[in-house]
Amino acid sequence: MSAQPLAPGAMIGIIGGGQLGRMLAMAAARLGYKTIILEPDIHAPAAQVANSQIVASYDDPEALEQLAEFCDVVTYEFENVPVAAVQWLEAHVAVRPGSKALEVAQDRLLEKTMARDLGAETALFAAVATRSELDTAITTTGLPAVLKTTRLGYDGKGQAKLVKPEDADPALAAMHGQMAILESFVHFDCEVSVIAARGLSGEVRAFDVAENVHRNHILHTSTVPSTLGAEARAEAIRIAAAIAGHLEYVGVFAVEFFAVRDRERHRLLVNEIAPRVHNSGHWTEAACAISQFEQHIRAITGLPLGDPARHSDCVMENLIGDDITRVPGLATESGTVLHLYGKSDARPGRKMGHVTRISPLT
Amino acid sequence: MSAQPLAPGAMIGIIGGGQLGRMLAMAAARLGYKTIILEPDIHAPAAQVANSQIVASYDDPEALEQLAEFCDVVTYEFENVPVAAVQWLEAHVAVRPGSKALEVAQDRLLEKTMARDLGAETALFAAVATRSELDTAITTTGLPAVLKTTRLGYDGKGQAKLVKPEDADPALAAMHGQMAILESFVHFDCEVSVIAARGLSGEVRAFDVAENVHRNHILHTSTVPSTLGAEARAEAIRIAAAIAGHLEYVGVFAVEFFAVRDRERHRLLVNEIAPRVHNSGHWTEAACAISQFEQHIRAITGLPLGDPARHSDCVMENLIGDDITRVPGLATESGTVLHLYGKSDARPGRKMGHVTRISPLT
Repeated sequence: MSAQPLAPGAMIGIIGGGQLGRMLAMAAARLGYKTIILEPDIHAPAAQVANSQIVASYDDPEALEQLAEFCDVVTYEFENVPVAAVQWLEAHVAVRPGSKALEVAQDRLLEKTMARDLGAETALFAAVATRSELDTAITTTGLPAVLKTTRLGYDGKGQAKLVKPEDADPALAAMHGQMAILESFVHFDCEVSVIAARGLSGEVRAFDVAENVHRNHILHTSTVPSTLGAEARAEAIRIAAAIAGHLEYVGVFAVEFFAVRDRERHRLLVNEIAPRVHNSGHWTEAACAISQFEQHIRAITGLPLGDPARHSDCVMENLIGDDITRVPGLATESGTVLHLYGKSDARPGRKMGHVTRISPLT
Repeated sequence: MSAQPLAPGAMIGIIGGGQLGRMLAMAAARLGYKTIILEPDIHAPAAQVANSQIVASYDDPEALEQLAEFCDVVTYEFENVPVAAVQWLEAHVAVRPGSKALEVAQDRLLEKTMARDLGAETALFAAVATRSELDTAITTTGLPAVLKTTRLGYDGKGQAKLVKPEDADPALAAMHGQMAILESFVHFDCEVSVIAARGLSGEVRAFDVAENVHRNHILHTSTVPSTLGAEARAEAIRIAAAIAGHLEYVGVFAVEFFAVRDRERHRLLVNEIAPRVHNSGHWTEAACAISQFEQHIRAITGLPLGDPARHSDCVMENLIGDDITRVPGLATESGTVLHLYGKSDARPGRKMGHVTRISPLT
């Protein structure tokens, strides 16, 4: 634990060069810090706004040595960074968050087990490596259920739905021999997420709970405030804080929940933990004095965490693929905060930017 | 006049690498544009966040050729860019705003004369090149008065106050033989500024009037809303729009006024015109959906101008020199938006950053 925050001019290493790294680099610049991006793609969005880029793979030994040498602290912008690379770095420079959160977030089984062990509810789940384990797992979860690879899945990739027993074979085949987890299908009322930060001192500060709508397994909108009651919102933040404390986490993270209607209230099931800034927190840059990106930079540099209070209600909408052509029209709307990522190729399904519409607090 | 806005990925050239260029480059990035900075100082704040930098003087012919070749539009972040350089560029690439605004803003005499010709009030003034002209000028302005070089003055440099006739000699000596303007000393009630944008279509949109306090001739705070009445605020915006129209201006500009108490209302005297984003508009990034920086990028790229409405009241405070050491303390305050410029050397009088405190609309 460092008593003094990093001074302006300190160098922050960011592993990963996507839009999250880009927005982190801009937040770092606003606090007077410099950034260096480790990213093999020379056209990466983050490199365009960072001080410099190391063009190499995320586990390139020379690149990691350079990061350790040049940086005062290293962070990452996506959860599929090789754990071994981060472990090597941790021996040579402050890495926040560290490898522990990465290990858990890279494995759905560890993730769900941790959440359950911390007293949070999850979907029913069971590990699946073989066909016979899948049969046993179905007796645990019931049907419908969702089979997912335990590792390297996001935006719906590596997932198969089982509605009837005959779906077992094709679902298992879709795992391509990888270790999997079967999860009971949750009939949720809505999906929500908490974006929170844990500082070096252990303090946790959470932004307001956002209500998220996905389309084709990709986040479509985040709306704040959510339709959750005050009790469920507090519960979501309590669970997030317990997870961060358990992981001795430093930085911003997201916990995604399914909210299941239970008479007049909502029960919350932990769905996913992201050890990084998160798409469902992009609204913070438009509706709070402190964005999730600045909050992360504050946490990892040892600055005090900022006040996550909202000054406005808002709806964030992702701009996917061709949505980018809507920009001139969106630019005519009042109370609309546009944010594009500098990607030249608007492929279908690619996140090109987002727009947040703010309105007075209700 | 271009019918289509520049597409994301287009290149914007920015002449000047200071904090205004830095904040313009970040705003450009958020709209998906790339930036190239022309600036001789390789450690310049803007270069840290831009795609690239041409390290050369502002009138270097090769550098200007490169700007013309690589850029879809060129802008500038300070008003002392050599007019000839901008005129050369105008023949080869879109330059917004163009050289006309620069010429006027570089000469206090042209500036004040234009304001007066457009029907706006100014301090009493007269041109001064010689000692006898100074004597005549004093009969126009009365005493006290302020003698200023007509060109290249900012933050109080190149100014001398005349309280009594004997001050004439030292005041004239302080001009070092440069052409000067004598202005009557204005007993103002407050200083205010309008930050407005004029788009390619001629549309003008103004942010709310800010009330400014200077210390040692450097802006200390900007407060919004100001203490001006609705009539005076509307008048300030009307004058700003007239000036922009007259200059066929494209982009964001500032008009600074002295507000003189006249019984129950305020009379406004144009003090200075800045053909660029302005320190007294930094509050917009914290209290509006659209900052002055984004508004400038929208104007020069042909995107629709954004809605300049405020979502919060605010006070912006400049962080000068050693004020930078207050950052960790400021970071603990709620509703506080920090912005540092990445300058390593906190010299006295140097603008290191600013902080904006927001509060609900009154």
